[in-house]
Amino acid sequence: MILLCNDDGFNADGLRALYHELSQEDDVIIVAPETEQSAMGHAITLSQPLKVRKVVEEGKFIGYAVNGTPADCVKLAIAVLLDEPPRLVVSGINLGGNLGICALYSGTVSAATEAMIMGVPSIAVSLDTYEDPDFSPAAKFIRKLIPTVMKKGLPQGVVLNVNVPPVPEAELAGVAITRQGKSRVVESFDKRADPRNNTYYWMAGEMRFDEVEDGADCVMVSKNYISVTPIHFDLTHYASIDEIKGWKL
Amino acid sequence: MILLCNDDGFNADGLRALYHELSQEDDVIIVAPETEQSAMGHAITLSQPLKVRKVVEEGKFIGYAVNGTPADCVKLAIAVLLDEPPRLVVSGINLGGNLGICALYSGTVSAATEAMIMGVPSIAVSLDTYEDPDFSPAAKFIRKLIPTVMKKGLPQGVVLNVNVPPVPEAELAGVAITRQGKSRVVESFDKRADPRNNTYYWMAGEMRFDEVEDGADCVMVSKNYISVTPIHFDLTHYASIDEIKGWKL
Repeated sequence: MILLCNDDGFNADGLRALYHELSQEDDVIIVAPETEQSAMGHAITLSQPLKVRKVVEEGKFIGYAVNGTPADCVKLAIAVLLDEPPRLVVSGINLGGNLGICALYSGTVSAATEAMIMGVPSIAVSLDTYEDPDFSPAAKFIRKLIPTVMKKGLPQGVVLNVNVPPVPEAELAGVAITRQGKSRVVESFDKRADPRNNTYYWMAGEMRFDEVEDGADCVMVSKNYISVTPIHFDLTHYASIDEIKGWKL
Repeated sequence: MILLCNDDGFNADGLRALYHELSQEDDVIIVAPETEQSAMGHAITLSQPLKVRKVVEEGKFIGYAVNGTPADCVKLAIAVLLDEPPRLVVSGINLGGNLGICALYSGTVSAATEAMIMGVPSIAVSLDTYEDPDFSPAAKFIRKLIPTVMKKGLPQGVVLNVNVPPVPEAELAGVAITRQGKSRVVESFDKRADPRNNTYYWMAGEMRFDEVEDGADCVMVSKNYISVTPIHFDLTHYASIDEIKGWKL
């Protein structure tokens, strides 16, 4: 059985496209947030109870909606809701790329990370657009990718972060195995006053592409390649350990 | 000027201990969440406005409380609230260690990460206890660490994740430069029924120490060393790139 999660919420089109594609040949269960949880990073819910709604559509059980974060959903699914551990977790298809530094803020990636922490192989998948999305090329790619991942096995501690360019299948240039690029969102804050003249701020921001080298996720997606980045969560910067030992703290 | 942030909230004792210690020789400003934001990971607030409360205590301006996450606070501070960029961001002192896999869930660490992304050197600091905390040894260590960090400079993209054992200063064994260990919280869910007989779950969990090797953060803290781990946020697992290229996707 394959578990699907996302951060755009249970009813998001990207999740449903993935469900539709993968359920053609696999048992698939969705455990996903009741509402949108974008930019939740690896948040988990400790101070609120989690409620679970069983979802049946057209007479068919398709999964559970949870009033929590993407990481909550994966934890709860594997620890409680599912009868057996899934053989794979796929998180997505996210509306909007998770490229460069943005992967750190991504609830989509965090659901996949949580699965890895719990010992289940996982893939995060995002479509790099916010406009007029066609999720089907991304869904088809994941369907094709799964047997290879299951056969080869992911390296210990590694999650695949897949980003798909928003072009028709015929225009895809191929698949690139990439590194996480350095591009990031440069935030701006829109300052406003409420009706009682209190100041408040809306966070906005634009993606800044600082990266030009081939091999970076964002560069390859801009060239219409599907980007597959192996990511892991040992954050240690090993190269610095000896340097800092030299500080004699 | 040094910017302080945390995830336990503006009025948390750990933050105040740090403010008290560091303001003895530096200009210090706090920009911290209005309320507790533990386990928020690297969440940012896109769908709600951020409100800011200027905090003056005993006639002295000490900072701003923000109704957002730790990462929001650092973004807003550097982009809008402060007249000039801080020379350093210190996040903490967190109540409870951020060791092993827990660093991924930590709002304390994420505030420091956000500073690094915005080009400001940063340190996250946590006291490894939830009971009867004495923050002063940790605060003193950070005060002593700052001149070294400013003089030597942190390696590009690196944040220091400091964890302090909960012992009196005289019992500290020293400082260990460590790697992020593999210990993690193994979650359990407490299943209950509400007054209308709906099921809900409380997340609980216990830290499981899977790690025994010297050099891991949790091991050294358990031996009464202050642990300093250089962490970074290029998540790429470089060793896997060639392997996955061999999959011929």
